[in-house]
Amino acid sequence: MEYEAIPGVTLVLGGARSGKSRFAEGLVTRLPGPWIYIATAQAWDDEMRDRIRQHRADRAPGWTTVEAPLDLADALSRHGHGPLLVDCLTLWLTNVMLADRDVPAAFAALEDALAACTGPIVLVGNEVGLGIVPDNALARAFRDHAGRLHQRLAVLASQVFLTVAGLPLKVK
Amino acid sequence: MEYEAIPGVTLVLGGARSGKSRFAEGLVTRLPGPWIYIATAQAWDDEMRDRIRQHRADRAPGWTTVEAPLDLADALSRHGHGPLLVDCLTLWLTNVMLADRDVPAAFAALEDALAACTGPIVLVGNEVGLGIVPDNALARAFRDHAGRLHQRLAVLASQVFLTVAGLPLKVK
Amino acid sequence: MEYEAIPGVTLVLGGARSGKSRFAEGLVTRLPGPWIYIATAQAWDDEMRDRIRQHRADRAPGWTTVEAPLDLADALSRHGHGPLLVDCLTLWLTNVMLADRDVPAAFAALEDALAACTGPIVLVGNEVGLGIVPDNALARAFRDHAGRLHQRLAVLASQVFLTVAGLPLKVK
Repeated sequence: MEYEAIPGVTLVLGGARSGKSRFAEGLVTRLPGPWIYIATAQAWDDEMRDRIRQHRADRAPGWTTVEAPLDLADALSRHGHGPLLVDCLTLWLTNVMLADRDVPAAFAALEDALAACTGPIVLVGNEVGLGIVPDNALARAFRDHAGRLHQRLAVLASQVFLTVAGLPLKVK
Repeated sequence: MEYEAIPGVTLVLGGARSGKSRFAEGLVTRLPGPWIYIATAQAWDDEMRDRIRQHRADRAPGWTTVEAPLDLADALSRHGHGPLLVDCLTLWLTNVMLADRDVPAAFAALEDALAACTGPIVLVGNEVGLGIVPDNALARAFRDHAGRLHQRLAVLASQVFLTVAGLPLKVK
Repeated sequence: MEYEAIPGVTLVLGGARSGKSRFAEGLVTRLPGPWIYIATAQAWDDEMRDRIRQHRADRAPGWTTVEAPLDLADALSRHGHGPLLVDCLTLWLTNVMLADRDVPAAFAALEDALAACTGPIVLVGNEVGLGIVPDNALARAFRDHAGRLHQRLAVLASQVFLTVAGLPLKVK
């Protein structure tokens, strides 16, 4: 069965290397372009810069990449009038926490921006809450925030998927 | 689709901040009250005491809270004649292990108590087995016990759900 | 609902103590025997030797056990003409990495061997990617490899399951 992005928000969750980004890209590229790719990865060093360049080269032509490591709500407001992919929420949340921004305020701004988007929006996030409680307090705070974010986005989403071994389980 | 607790046991598993408690509470409160809430959290310090007080204040009126950090089988025997929620199995298992009780005996007593309950019972548990093998031997033992417990309870359950981003996947 | 192995490859993923091995064994034993059990566990010490012996004793009669901690493709080529279970991919991947073998080459050889099998093949693997990013670089590499392996095998599989509390979620 082939899914595609539908009006409103589609949330794609999955574990590491579960094929969530590829599945999410397919949801968007099954629609007529042009397509906006909002990249939240931040290039801290040369290795990361190389990986980001590689990811961009791997994408099908027809994508326009917009970098928004922190100001995701802003990028959605500017570009959310056509098919758009955010990859990924998890790096964005990491950036928000590392920049010491107010997390609940950032979530609320994101929800407001999504509500105002007119194009189909696909959001990719890492599901990180199904292992043992981490020893590290920052990791615990991170997974709590990530879980709450996913729940809030799932409420407003039209579709929610969990990818397993590259395959989508439809949750909503 | 709105689910509700049905006669027998409903098992609700989910990751951290996956909305499992809220979903489980809804399963119970869709039935006529009064409802029993068996809390297994143990107040070790003031922070925990505050969190427990907060959780209790957040619950809808109509709940009666019973604390059973260790003697869960007992609490089920005394209160399991009407709609009842246990939140959560994971803290109970932690308490059983920390108190150095016999884990297989505790599981067997729990199963016996559940078999004798006449009301619909909803059990909440953390799924903790889907990450990398923990370095820590106690964490490994814990996730082994938790996995075995969930399997045993799933056998006797009428319904089993896995919550993802606040949404239920029906597994049984 | 009772599933069974079908022609081609069935991939069974699940967390620790999620009942994946038992479910996978049932897929095979619902078919007429004889059945081949490919064990990838390596006995490094007496404890492991005991556990392997115990596992073997627990299996129903009718199984023939073949040990293939590293040369899984080979074992499949020799035995993959009837119902066969590989338990598990995760230990095999661990052995491949510890032996410093080329991981992509090992994956390609495995895919080639599977394509040439004529019997129904059931592969068991641990889903390890749904927790917090591990601190440890080897663990990160491992979960990346495991995720990629599962995705590749899911593409060629006829059926894919995720076990939760001993119950199968059909993903493909």
